[in-house]
Amino acid sequence: MKDVVTLAQGAGGKQTSELIERIFKRHLDNPDLTADDAAVLAVPAGRIAVSTDGFIVSPAFFPGGNVGKLSVCGTVNDVACMSATPLYLTCSFVIEEGYPLADLERIVEAMAATAAEAGVRVVAGDTKVAGRGQVDGVFVTTTGIGLVREGASTSGALARPGDVVIVTGDVGRHGCAILLARDEFGIEADVTSDCAPLAAAIGATLDAAPHVHTIRDATRGGVGTVLYEIAHQSGVGVELDAEAVPVAPEVAGVCGMLGLEPLYLACEGRLVVVVPEEEADAALAALRASSHTEGAAVIGHITDEERGRVLMRTQIGTQTILPEPGNELLPRIC
Amino acid sequence: MKDVVTLAQGAGGKQTSELIERIFKRHLDNPDLTADDAAVLAVPAGRIAVSTDGFIVSPAFFPGGNVGKLSVCGTVNDVACMSATPLYLTCSFVIEEGYPLADLERIVEAMAATAAEAGVRVVAGDTKVAGRGQVDGVFVTTTGIGLVREGASTSGALARPGDVVIVTGDVGRHGCAILLARDEFGIEADVTSDCAPLAAAIGATLDAAPHVHTIRDATRGGVGTVLYEIAHQSGVGVELDAEAVPVAPEVAGVCGMLGLEPLYLACEGRLVVVVPEEEADAALAALRASSHTEGAAVIGHITDEERGRVLMRTQIGTQTILPEPGNELLPRIC
Repeated sequence: MKDVVTLAQGAGGKQTSELIERIFKRHLDNPDLTADDAAVLAVPAGRIAVSTDGFIVSPAFFPGGNVGKLSVCGTVNDVACMSATPLYLTCSFVIEEGYPLADLERIVEAMAATAAEAGVRVVAGDTKVAGRGQVDGVFVTTTGIGLVREGASTSGALARPGDVVIVTGDVGRHGCAILLARDEFGIEADVTSDCAPLAAAIGATLDAAPHVHTIRDATRGGVGTVLYEIAHQSGVGVELDAEAVPVAPEVAGVCGMLGLEPLYLACEGRLVVVVPEEEADAALAALRASSHTEGAAVIGHITDEERGRVLMRTQIGTQTILPEPGNELLPRIC
Repeated sequence: MKDVVTLAQGAGGKQTSELIERIFKRHLDNPDLTADDAAVLAVPAGRIAVSTDGFIVSPAFFPGGNVGKLSVCGTVNDVACMSATPLYLTCSFVIEEGYPLADLERIVEAMAATAAEAGVRVVAGDTKVAGRGQVDGVFVTTTGIGLVREGASTSGALARPGDVVIVTGDVGRHGCAILLARDEFGIEADVTSDCAPLAAAIGATLDAAPHVHTIRDATRGGVGTVLYEIAHQSGVGVELDAEAVPVAPEVAGVCGMLGLEPLYLACEGRLVVVVPEEEADAALAALRASSHTEGAAVIGHITDEERGRVLMRTQIGTQTILPEPGNELLPRIC
């Protein structure tokens, strides 16, 4: 086999089978991985959560992860946010002709390691190869399936006035790491993506605080965008304590230099959790005791004023409306 | 809104929401389509079938369909081939900046119409936008979920010597249609893709012939590749009656001119069905009475000789081994 991906490996014949054996099956094999075109999986009666996302991050390798790790985290976290235990994952690759097999293998290795940490099995996949210049490197699309906890119900539409808003760690790392990895700004700073699988932390939180209303991962558009989505979906206002939002000094430094707001920078391992006040302490304690969410902090609360908006209270006590996110901050962030 | 896709529409903020409302929700909306990052769906206890595929066909519009229709058919058919009733679909789009919104809408309209025909609901989606030259047009990845019939079991590994091999219509149309649509060969011929959703036909076949062993859709690599996969997976031989393989005259003509073998040309609406001899007539009758499979024909049988190989019996009674498929016949066929 050559050391780069060939068009023949995307044709569905012998070379495709060899590529699957050598790279995909080698790292992702498990008893549920199908040899047919679809996996058959036993499920108990109940509710499943299903999510899909395409990952086209550029560069595909960045401090703290790569597109393989990201493609597992992003989808597993979306499933877990619906109070579900992620179980199964599918992955679909579109690869550029000539892509180094060694890089593809590193991506698949990261997927395997992250899937193992998240407790999900890859059950089905697909590999397509596009000609040079028809796709930029490797695009990965994952779909996750999880079992929703009995009785649990979380949604962006369930936030209620009085609820406490928690973020599970310092914000904007992923966006900042990608931005620096592109080398377009000539800024040197040591920022690592927060990309991480959060299903275990969410499970522990729901054990401790079963009436959590909303869990969302603050990916594209960052925490600011997620808060606006919750405000719209739930028809509530959000009051944010600007100083309480955790930002790493190095991220704050980069944002200061470039005039960026960390609240709009993507995270890939941070949650916004909206919880009734009486369970807020329990949720916070559970998050702080879990991996990847040790830095959880209360950053605000839900109000019945200024519905559909996010108000930011500043250090000197004034209130300003956080501008509604829009436009393209940074393409191909995830 | 501009009349082309912008990078901002892939950023996850306001413009993304507008694009989703205007194009995706408008055509695909249904009670199960999530407003969160994952859909929550009720399932009975049992087995689900899950399949994923990326669709990068070039050109995206071709006689008989477009990438939207194709992305529903391909995945729904893969799910149905496992004896499952397809229920849910997710779709993930990667779109090139500057792509005409009118074309995107035609693609989504085709998805909606095909999903309706196939009886599946689109429950979750994702939209990413890559810069000009970073993706060629529109790539769509779909994942399908279906409920496996109680007691039913079909797989490429279950073919047994003595089984009858059926193909559900004339072969090679899709590959031939794409080839002609590319205008690279200067050949004029009126060939329409066979792209079609086959879940209803499969359901009717399983009603009539509940012990069907294998159902596979002959996509990338065509019927020849599927027969080799079955031969390998089941550890059997396949004996093919070359003259019995239905080929439309216009496809045969194009193949003759270009020196191509129709058995290796992709179909997107043709099944290979392997059925015990005692149920073969019932399966054939059910297929002939169903939409998109009216042209079903017996093309061979499974043997315990030449395991792992496909033998072709020719008109004059000689046998030759069908060469094992490999190499790239035509990139971006699906």
